[in-house]
Amino acid sequence: MNYKMILNTTGKVLLTGGILLLLPLLIAIGYLENSALYLGITAFLAILIGFLIVKFIKPNNNVIYSKEGFIIVTLAWLVLSLVGCLPFYLSGQIPSFIDAFFETVSGFTTTGASILNDPSLMDKGLLFWRSFTHWIGGMGIIVFIVAINKKISDSSIHVLRAEMPGPSVDKLVPTAKDTATILYLIYLVLTGLEVILLAFGDMNLFDAIVHALGTAGTGGFGVRADSIASYSAYSQWVIAIFMFLFGINFNLFYLVIIGKIKNVLKSNELITYILIVLLSITVVSINIYPIYENLADVLRLSTFQVTSLMSTTGYSTVNFDAWPTLSKSILILLMFIGGCAGSTAGGFKVSRIVIIFKRIKKELRRIIHPRSVESIKTEGKLIDETTVNGTGTYLAIYVLSFVVVFFLLSLFGGNFAEGVNLFETNFTATLSCLNNIGPGLNGVGPTLNFANYSDASKIVLSFTMLLGRLELYPLLITLSASTWVKH
Amino acid sequence: MNYKMILNTTGKVLLTGGILLLLPLLIAIGYLENSALYLGITAFLAILIGFLIVKFIKPNNNVIYSKEGFIIVTLAWLVLSLVGCLPFYLSGQIPSFIDAFFETVSGFTTTGASILNDPSLMDKGLLFWRSFTHWIGGMGIIVFIVAINKKISDSSIHVLRAEMPGPSVDKLVPTAKDTATILYLIYLVLTGLEVILLAFGDMNLFDAIVHALGTAGTGGFGVRADSIASYSAYSQWVIAIFMFLFGINFNLFYLVIIGKIKNVLKSNELITYILIVLLSITVVSINIYPIYENLADVLRLSTFQVTSLMSTTGYSTVNFDAWPTLSKSILILLMFIGGCAGSTAGGFKVSRIVIIFKRIKKELRRIIHPRSVESIKTEGKLIDETTVNGTGTYLAIYVLSFVVVFFLLSLFGGNFAEGVNLFETNFTATLSCLNNIGPGLNGVGPTLNFANYSDASKIVLSFTMLLGRLELYPLLITLSASTWVKH
Repeated sequence: MNYKMILNTTGKVLLTGGILLLLPLLIAIGYLENSALYLGITAFLAILIGFLIVKFIKPNNNVIYSKEGFIIVTLAWLVLSLVGCLPFYLSGQIPSFIDAFFETVSGFTTTGASILNDPSLMDKGLLFWRSFTHWIGGMGIIVFIVAINKKISDSSIHVLRAEMPGPSVDKLVPTAKDTATILYLIYLVLTGLEVILLAFGDMNLFDAIVHALGTAGTGGFGVRADSIASYSAYSQWVIAIFMFLFGINFNLFYLVIIGKIKNVLKSNELITYILIVLLSITVVSINIYPIYENLADVLRLSTFQVTSLMSTTGYSTVNFDAWPTLSKSILILLMFIGGCAGSTAGGFKVSRIVIIFKRIKKELRRIIHPRSVESIKTEGKLIDETTVNGTGTYLAIYVLSFVVVFFLLSLFGGNFAEGVNLFETNFTATLSCLNNIGPGLNGVGPTLNFANYSDASKIVLSFTMLLGRLELYPLLITLSASTWVKH
Repeated sequence: MNYKMILNTTGKVLLTGGILLLLPLLIAIGYLENSALYLGITAFLAILIGFLIVKFIKPNNNVIYSKEGFIIVTLAWLVLSLVGCLPFYLSGQIPSFIDAFFETVSGFTTTGASILNDPSLMDKGLLFWRSFTHWIGGMGIIVFIVAINKKISDSSIHVLRAEMPGPSVDKLVPTAKDTATILYLIYLVLTGLEVILLAFGDMNLFDAIVHALGTAGTGGFGVRADSIASYSAYSQWVIAIFMFLFGINFNLFYLVIIGKIKNVLKSNELITYILIVLLSITVVSINIYPIYENLADVLRLSTFQVTSLMSTTGYSTVNFDAWPTLSKSILILLMFIGGCAGSTAGGFKVSRIVIIFKRIKKELRRIIHPRSVESIKTEGKLIDETTVNGTGTYLAIYVLSFVVVFFLLSLFGGNFAEGVNLFETNFTATLSCLNNIGPGLNGVGPTLNFANYSDASKIVLSFTMLLGRLELYPLLITLSASTWVKH
């Protein structure tokens, strides 16, 4: 185990986190807010400690293996969340430390589940930091460090793999550093575009930036208690379209840029993603039409909610918990599926669904025609057996994690109003946090929040969000005894 | 495709079904009930048509492959359910044909989900037939035919495999026929023992027989509207113990009989099963103690509900839908797991859970120590890769089936009382039918029934029960276009 390398990278994460905190600090100073003090203290401490670690704990060699990759990523996200929650806690704007930790993990993991009843009461600097965590977490902090670092060894691909969503991470270009840089550039440009489009509508610049950050990371933190509901139809459409875009594999944007549009159109995952979105919008629209009786409203509401939940963003423009059962079931299904691999979206991922469908088809054909030999292809490439079986194991761990979290919520509970159905509440809270969505249904529906859960439940849900964002393995491997035993 | 063999076997199933109907016919005659007429007509028609098919459609050869095995089993169960529901429908005691079909499928698949508000209003002959379907379906109709047939080709193991629960079916003894006979003998003796023990308590002989049949098949149909709640504590304990026993792999009973008790004690699946049952009883007891404040009552209630839901029987002695969330979550978990492979119980099966856990452990170790090579062992035997990967695929198909059924219930719905939570109702109805349990929670809780679902939902749930009892593949393969295409 390369302990020094692990510590050194954690130092870099701390340092980077501190530097990133300077941005909300500037905003807080600009608005002459008290929170500037607490953002400043946190930034200073993070930069100082991070600098000392990087300076004095130097690894003897840069070689790391996938095991170290998983540990580095887990530590990075934990350290970042613990430091990132300090401004909320120290300023007293979130008086409970556990609540502040929950909110920050929810931010970095791009979940968007909140314990705030009304975010508009918070300082602008903190509100910006809250949404900025979405943006940092969306593409990944390690990816960011790799992108901006001059000297970076190519074994850092192990860390990238551990942090990036999806069953297999392609290098776009030969080196990890260039891949990371390209991804961040695409991310930055798309976010900038959304800010401009939103600023043209009824949003002021601050709101436009906050919501663009929340959309880009597929997070879902906003500035108003009713999420996006009270903004104009124009703003809602812009956000809906960008939520859809940020659910797409970033590799495809790169292919568009370098002119290989043909390859993009052949992507199984993209086609499946688009079909699911269109089909869902159609069915939900038909199902809710009798409620609103206005086609433009119906299309806007259904498109927004479908793209929001499928991309695991979690913004809402309506209390969809009050929709008919069929529409709610569709939304739950979309929450399970999530976005595409290699996007900022969470969830089980469309590509895994595609692989599992092909695997089921293959198994049925094998039983019917025992002598036929078939291999599984997707995105025009043959998938090796390890990936196919790995997807099966991933599903198993996913289901198991779901069961354990659901069970712990039943154990630790919360303090909910009379009439709240705890089964639906705990089930969708688990789903929402494991897939990094934000709202659930019933007791954690879009007009409510996670404040009613007990502290123990909030801690469970915080780790659930990390488990989901890092796609199960990093956290489990870090917690596994076998990792720490010499072999 | 050996069509003649498929038809011929379906004829045998019809003939056997007709002969089995003579038993409830005798009871109906004994009680001088009108239903004797309808039981008689159905038996006569089934025997006549069955006999004609067996007589005139003779296969050219007895060779069948696994594909034909799956189709034979699917057809057998469909034909049996369609014929078996006629006495209920013709007698007018279940006025709707769809309801009668639902109730009969629920019987044969050992689900025990009912559309009757009060079964005690039904004729004795029909009540007996209703519970007898549990007993027939528990071990399997094809297994029965193989057991009683003198001339049986050994390729019938394909049909046995398709009908018997669990990831791999062992032949206890070299021939399929002897294996089937031994299984049915153990089944018969255990059932007889339960009848005797129940008749010693407060049950009359008829009730004792009906409940023994319902327990043996892990079905759950009884004779009273409150299931087992109004019987004595003695009867409740007897049934609880037998529900536990019928959830165990029958191979283990055979090993006990031939004196290989050591092998029984080494069974991973048995140990896991016992541990889960004991742990669940303990936690539920602690959780519900404040409600009843009497240790004897608490232990009886928790033991009964835990063994009933884990063995997927579905009898109840209390309205556990009113229990605290933690206990309900444990019961839902048990409903998912189900009994052991090779028992009459439904569910995902303990052995599959064991395999999946070992697979996850192996995958995590592979990531941590990439050079280590491990294989998966259970029941002292090495499991080949095909079984391990097959279990992963099974999980995938299981989850997919669950999602599709849940979705169809959301679409077709029902007519439920105000205040019923449709998410919990549809979710547990899907779980209950797919795992052949009986009651669910909320709108289909233990004090309620499935009568409120629409006809379309009832048809969906009927096929769900078949899907679950035959463990997904037979029904899917029969419905798959690829099966009927020449290759």
